Amino acid sequence: MSHYYRLVVSCPDRRGIVARVSGFIAGHGGSITEASQHSDLETGRFFMRYEILADSIGMTGQELRDAFEPVAREFDMQWALRDTRHPPRVVVMASRERHCLVDLLYRWTAGELEGDIVGVISNHDDMRSLVEWHGLPYHHVPVPSDDRASAFAEVERRIEALGADTVVLARYMQILPPAVCQRYAGRVINIHHSFLPSFAGARPYHQAHARGVKLIGATCHYVTEELDAGPIIEQDIHRVSHCHTADDLVRFGRDVERAVLARGLRWHLEDRVLIHGNKTVVFA
Amino acid sequence: MSHYYRLVVSCPDRRGIVARVSGFIAGHGGSITEASQHSDLETGRFFMRYEILADSIGMTGQELRDAFEPVAREFDMQWALRDTRHPPRVVVMASRERHCLVDLLYRWTAGELEGDIVGVISNHDDMRSLVEWHGLPYHHVPVPSDDRASAFAEVERRIEALGADTVVLARYMQILPPAVCQRYAGRVINIHHSFLPSFAGARPYHQAHARGVKLIGATCHYVTEELDAGPIIEQDIHRVSHCHTADDLVRFGRDVERAVLARGLRWHLEDRVLIHGNKTVVFA
Amino acid sequence: MSHYYRLVVSCPDRRGIVARVSGFIAGHGGSITEASQHSDLETGRFFMRYEILADSIGMTGQELRDAFEPVAREFDMQWALRDTRHPPRVVVMASRERHCLVDLLYRWTAGELEGDIVGVISNHDDMRSLVEWHGLPYHHVPVPSDDRASAFAEVERRIEALGADTVVLARYMQILPPAVCQRYAGRVINIHHSFLPSFAGARPYHQAHARGVKLIGATCHYVTEELDAGPIIEQDIHRVSHCHTADDLVRFGRDVERAVLARGLRWHLEDRVLIHGNKTVVFA
Amino acid sequence: MSHYYRLVVSCPDRRGIVARVSGFIAGHGGSITEASQHSDLETGRFFMRYEILADSIGMTGQELRDAFEPVAREFDMQWALRDTRHPPRVVVMASRERHCLVDLLYRWTAGELEGDIVGVISNHDDMRSLVEWHGLPYHHVPVPSDDRASAFAEVERRIEALGADTVVLARYMQILPPAVCQRYAGRVINIHHSFLPSFAGARPYHQAHARGVKLIGATCHYVTEELDAGPIIEQDIHRVSHCHTADDLVRFGRDVERAVLARGLRWHLEDRVLIHGNKTVVFA
Repeated sequence: MSHYYRLVVSCPDRRGIVARVSGFIAGHGGSITEASQHSDLETGRFFMRYEILADSIGMTGQELRDAFEPVAREFDMQWALRDTRHPPRVVVMASRERHCLVDLLYRWTAGELEGDIVGVISNHDDMRSLVEWHGLPYHHVPVPSDDRASAFAEVERRIEALGADTVVLARYMQILPPAVCQRYAGRVINIHHSFLPSFAGARPYHQAHARGVKLIGATCHYVTEELDAGPIIEQDIHRVSHCHTADDLVRFGRDVERAVLARGLRWHLEDRVLIHGNKTVVFA
Repeated sequence: MSHYYRLVVSCPDRRGIVARVSGFIAGHGGSITEASQHSDLETGRFFMRYEILADSIGMTGQELRDAFEPVAREFDMQWALRDTRHPPRVVVMASRERHCLVDLLYRWTAGELEGDIVGVISNHDDMRSLVEWHGLPYHHVPVPSDDRASAFAEVERRIEALGADTVVLARYMQILPPAVCQRYAGRVINIHHSFLPSFAGARPYHQAHARGVKLIGATCHYVTEELDAGPIIEQDIHRVSHCHTADDLVRFGRDVERAVLARGLRWHLEDRVLIHGNKTVVFA
Repeated sequence: MSHYYRLVVSCPDRRGIVARVSGFIAGHGGSITEASQHSDLETGRFFMRYEILADSIGMTGQELRDAFEPVAREFDMQWALRDTRHPPRVVVMASRERHCLVDLLYRWTAGELEGDIVGVISNHDDMRSLVEWHGLPYHHVPVPSDDRASAFAEVERRIEALGADTVVLARYMQILPPAVCQRYAGRVINIHHSFLPSFAGARPYHQAHARGVKLIGATCHYVTEELDAGPIIEQDIHRVSHCHTADDLVRFGRDVERAVLARGLRWHLEDRVLIHGNKTVVFA
Repeated sequence: MSHYYRLVVSCPDRRGIVARVSGFIAGHGGSITEASQHSDLETGRFFMRYEILADSIGMTGQELRDAFEPVAREFDMQWALRDTRHPPRVVVMASRERHCLVDLLYRWTAGELEGDIVGVISNHDDMRSLVEWHGLPYHHVPVPSDDRASAFAEVERRIEALGADTVVLARYMQILPPAVCQRYAGRVINIHHSFLPSFAGARPYHQAHARGVKLIGATCHYVTEELDAGPIIEQDIHRVSHCHTADDLVRFGRDVERAVLARGLRWHLEDRVLIHGNKTVVFA
């Protein structure tokens, strides 16, 4: 199967960026199979993502990076070039609700996620059998309320030991300590079970039911130190009515959550999500 | 064309209500063409709405009301019986944005609304020609910031003179005084240009843009004294992305607003919306 | 936990049905927790579904059936009364695509389906481990193209041995013989991977891709002898664009299929789906 | 207000196109504000659309065209360069249903459409007042069934006299003769009131109602000689149930039709729609 070099760039907008980058790639014989750009007129920032057929360029990823470095400097770029032969390593964190985990495991085995799930960490032991059936290590790290610090130190060691590039909070229901948020900034993805910014915090479906909304939602976002306030990657909703109890909302919500998380994670793993302040550019 | 008696009931839930009411109607030879019920298990309240073919009952609306009164008392009902030959009178209030007004006028002339629009009140004169082309009186009542009290006294006089059963705030952009909210409680419908409870208050699309949400929405609700906090009738959303400016959100929002307002108003006029505390039962 | 008697009725429409049935239930002290009715004005047929709290009636299901029989006869009803303590037995048939099966198994274990999955039959052996991990028997019945008759005789024996009330074709990819369709009429549910009636038959996503549609869909329907033409229970869609290959459509489609099948099956198992000629009444 | 040069290109895909085109624009000092590309891997065809801030280039549109000609030849491009100061001229054709026309007129006056509506042609006289109120000429051209040829000759003369770049069939309900379809190929947009390819031809909502579908839809497409079979620009749907009569479907459908037509037309007028065989590339 073909592999690709994926170039992702963000820089101050100015004339000639596309010409320079596409000229660079064409100059090396590169064949671009997918190209996306965005100029943010408010902030004057430019974003781009190119997929380049690796075989069309007679260079390794590192050689291409070295060659591109001067271009990047010239335009003051934040950038990355990834070789799709090295998929990101994903650690999933879960608690007792298993719908998101079941869904991610299914999608991973079905080849829908461009990443390798390398392990699951949970504060409960409930899903060991499910996870191990998928051939993955299951790390049970309890989080006692009187010793969260040690627990999260252990969580962090496990994440590191698993070599995680991306951490997914698949209804983990625990708030990560600020240090972890900072260390893995832009690499921890959460699914919040409301249509943010409505109903941040605890028991959002019960809040939604009490308010009598006619649509409930879910939000996939990057985790930052401020709870439920990080850059939003994806959202979706489900229609509800007076017939539905808070439990019905929870049930509908499960479907929305897993769909929204899966889309958000997929885009993240394909380098389609660029963080822009507290917002995202998503080249979906 | 056939006309109907429409019976709407809310009462404490207990056994035998449906049997009693449907038995009453059957006993008078009444033919029920549409029936909806809802038992709210949390609050123990029961709601129902019946459409009865008027010709199937040899009684006037008032006679039917008199006959039903003992049943209503027996079950401690809040209830109403309306004859569809007497459609509600609707006053629309608008400001400078005309998308909702244009849409309501179109739907009214197309026969989509079971009510009579009897006049338009606006704090600007911009839409006089449009409204008068539809054969409706246009009341220009400016609302100077230093004399809102007189202005709203005038507004209230006009609403009363027009004999309004329902008042629609079609992007009126002014906050009604508490006295008007109370006087017309359950009969003033507003369209708010966000997915409440997110982004209550001013400039919701700009708030949404700043937060970087991936869906924007609109909410049709009854007006209460607390701003944007009344019972929600209907909501809907539109997908947006990083490509869209705040102005694009405003534009998409117009489509959502007019659709949501039209659905909410239609259901209200057909007696499909029952207020239940700060929530609604909608027999759509 | 409470259990319910669920009464489902279809009969020629005439005055007094609701009064008679609700009077019957009230007369036995029955407490109705959910009630739905529909009068089809075109065909003059009436449909109703009542959920009755079993404890509110001092009778067994059979006693209640016996007592209701005269009412049913009087109104020429097709009817059933089910005790929710006896959930329907469900046999799932699958082939090589596992997304629908994985989803149904998850929902079943999560308590979302009011029925017992009692076994899986497949023409391939691929999903044995998955199914057996869920503690269910897996029946591998190959369907050789030169001896389909024997294969389906075997399939039918297995369905019967499993005591199936409902058979779900979860992307089974084989056409059931007419005899099976007839024998299990109204009890075999299929998920078709297109928005019927568009793209009936084989490879619908490739047909959709070739036509350049902007939305793809899936359809859950009862199986009849005519391929993909039975009564539709539920449909949904997913937006696509020129960016998407036929393989992308297949991938999006999997999400739509499993969601639509799950909703359709759930409603069927809760006796919410009444067949009306080649259409359905769905009291969702 | 800024104006733009809009460059739209389709050509055989090969390396270096983006580099050559963006290099050409950068070489002339051009500032690209929006860029979209698509490589169709199946057909090996490449599509692109650039918005270039006109002030950033010291050339007229014609000078820019002349300068680009050699590039276009080199890559065997089908291409166009449009100056947004010259918006396309739009003729709307309607019959008796006015929802699409009302909506287009509203959007045009609201500045949502990047084009000038220059006149309305109808086979009925019903909407003269509405159209003239908007300050537009109304051409009543009856289409008698026994002399369609003369009628359409007259229609064609009017279209030509109005200098139409784009013709919109806003529920015109008449089939254009092949000669007109050919002459205005890629410039006549129709709204069909079904989710094509389902229910092509007459009375699609009644067909949909008879089939018992759970979603109805509308399709905006380019008109070709084959009825309802041209390249699809946009589609959308609305959920329906057993409660809804064929008339309800017609009513819901009006909302979908006008939304879908408005989106399709907007994209067409902004040069976002590129025809690719019987499909479209839509840079929405």
